Amino acid sequence: MKTKRTGRRTVCLAEPPAIIGSASAVGQKEGDGPLGTSFDIVSEDAYFGERTWEKAESAMQRLAFFKALEKAKLTLSQLDYLFAGDLLNQCTASTFALRDAGVPYFGLFGACSTMAEGLGLAAMMIDGGYADFTCALTSSHFCSAERQFRLPLEYGGQRAPTAQWTATAAGAAILAAEGGGPYVTAVTTGRIRDGGITDAGNMGAAMAQAAYDTLRCHFEDLRLTPGDYDLIVTGDLGRIGRSIVLDFFRRDGVELAPVYDDCGVLLFDQGRQDVHAGGSGCGCSAAVLCSWLLDGMRAGRWKKLLFCGTGALMSPTTSGQGESIPGICHAVAISNTR
Amino acid sequence: MKTKRTGRRTVCLAEPPAIIGSASAVGQKEGDGPLGTSFDIVSEDAYFGERTWEKAESAMQRLAFFKALEKAKLTLSQLDYLFAGDLLNQCTASTFALRDAGVPYFGLFGACSTMAEGLGLAAMMIDGGYADFTCALTSSHFCSAERQFRLPLEYGGQRAPTAQWTATAAGAAILAAEGGGPYVTAVTTGRIRDGGITDAGNMGAAMAQAAYDTLRCHFEDLRLTPGDYDLIVTGDLGRIGRSIVLDFFRRDGVELAPVYDDCGVLLFDQGRQDVHAGGSGCGCSAAVLCSWLLDGMRAGRWKKLLFCGTGALMSPTTSGQGESIPGICHAVAISNTR
Repeated sequence: MKTKRTGRRTVCLAEPPAIIGSASAVGQKEGDGPLGTSFDIVSEDAYFGERTWEKAESAMQRLAFFKALEKAKLTLSQLDYLFAGDLLNQCTASTFALRDAGVPYFGLFGACSTMAEGLGLAAMMIDGGYADFTCALTSSHFCSAERQFRLPLEYGGQRAPTAQWTATAAGAAILAAEGGGPYVTAVTTGRIRDGGITDAGNMGAAMAQAAYDTLRCHFEDLRLTPGDYDLIVTGDLGRIGRSIVLDFFRRDGVELAPVYDDCGVLLFDQGRQDVHAGGSGCGCSAAVLCSWLLDGMRAGRWKKLLFCGTGALMSPTTSGQGESIPGICHAVAISNTR
Repeated sequence: MKTKRTGRRTVCLAEPPAIIGSASAVGQKEGDGPLGTSFDIVSEDAYFGERTWEKAESAMQRLAFFKALEKAKLTLSQLDYLFAGDLLNQCTASTFALRDAGVPYFGLFGACSTMAEGLGLAAMMIDGGYADFTCALTSSHFCSAERQFRLPLEYGGQRAPTAQWTATAAGAAILAAEGGGPYVTAVTTGRIRDGGITDAGNMGAAMAQAAYDTLRCHFEDLRLTPGDYDLIVTGDLGRIGRSIVLDFFRRDGVELAPVYDDCGVLLFDQGRQDVHAGGSGCGCSAAVLCSWLLDGMRAGRWKKLLFCGTGALMSPTTSGQGESIPGICHAVAISNTR
């Protein structure tokens, strides 16, 4: 069989799957941000009715999942595959959120790139002829992440200006073989890039190299320029990572700025919300995609979107052992037309 | 497009991909076990030349990966996708093992089911027309797992009779669109099952329900009986989990024993090696598959194999919060003929 690959790392889907439903659930701070009105569910209770931060994250992911199913007018039993993962050790936010779903489950670990990784695989599973309906979903919670990766919340330590704020957010997207758009048209899978950054308080810089690598490969593979998209968004590079990506492209003589933004920059108000370099976490790009971006496409604000999930593939142990931070970026092209 | 799904959760590959190379790397204890002579690399040094257990695990995974590439007569640049994951927090054994590979990377978290999860996805990526060559790989290391999940090694605590021994082992399988067998012919993807077991010292019992669920579904979807396979192996249920699976099937009037075994039972010698209920860890089923099982198929010992990776999707945090242990099992059918 002839492969559907174009160039080195890009797949063009033969029959682009439709995103027939998407939804988000977020915390109060995210609801107070510039995109607040676009989210489906904003919870004033950071515990989402649960007794621990970890259970809260699972509950929030479930809220986004069932809302997406409802918007797609689908029942659980119609779903062929779930693609999910998160930042918690052993990805338990997702497994505990979805353990009663009874749907075939592929667990992923892509750190904050999980939404893009899952979306790509979920689209290929349909286009490849293995499924009618798939779902990609993920979440992050400020409090579960903070105490796992950094310090007890009660410690209230000062944050570096380069630090980002893990979003309390979840997003879910339902894909189908048939249906109205937007459609997933192409997937450029990331390779791991390590630029030697060792500062775990500067994730944006650590991931920027991977974002540049995948974006450049995507343009080369498909012989496109940034201007062929109405909007290109990276996952959660924040202000610092975003400016590094712009610099990398400027060295190549390419000006990305007119069409380029970052979910971590978009999610919070820098002046008002004190998040330093911007938002981060699996849920950051997932919630922004599943609400503001896809809704904007449905409303005709953008016709062609390149969604680039970015992830830092380190752990506190590897950083403690002096290792640098490997990054990855998966790009998914989404279009209003097939 | 018509889906290639048969029944509820099984996919029959239209053009079954070939496993053109597979390899394993293990520690000394695994090398001393009943399957010792079948492993490609046995290291007397538990550190694999590195300075920490975590780096050792990455080094071991790299050894298995490059040995598999060599046996497949493939170069790194020919590989289209890597599917990898492991048990360490944030799956860093895999990301650090493969960060310099430069190959598009899908990070997985399936706990000890990772090899089967990766093998299924790697096969579908080829059959779906997205790749010519893919690789599924994973690892576990007794020392990195023990200190992360349980206690410092130096503590030397006593183990419950139901406890299993995390294998120091890695396995890698290279798949191709063309080539001699064995071939991946069908994939039954697991759903999460939770039987309410809360004892993190009895993983076999926690995963047995998922194994039974997937095996039963596989037989129903394809209208097969256990006797249609020469060998059915679960990942790492150990002696206790294995006996529970046998009991579940006996309740249905089905005798699985003549064709059924478990990698965790096969890997160590119960009388001589003091591993209590048997082996476990991502590397357990991966190394047994990639050496003893696939070599046995190549030698004609078995013609049809059902490889069922089993995973416990918990973390120390979820167990500490009183949660039960969700399990999953992915089944991959491998045959000497297409």
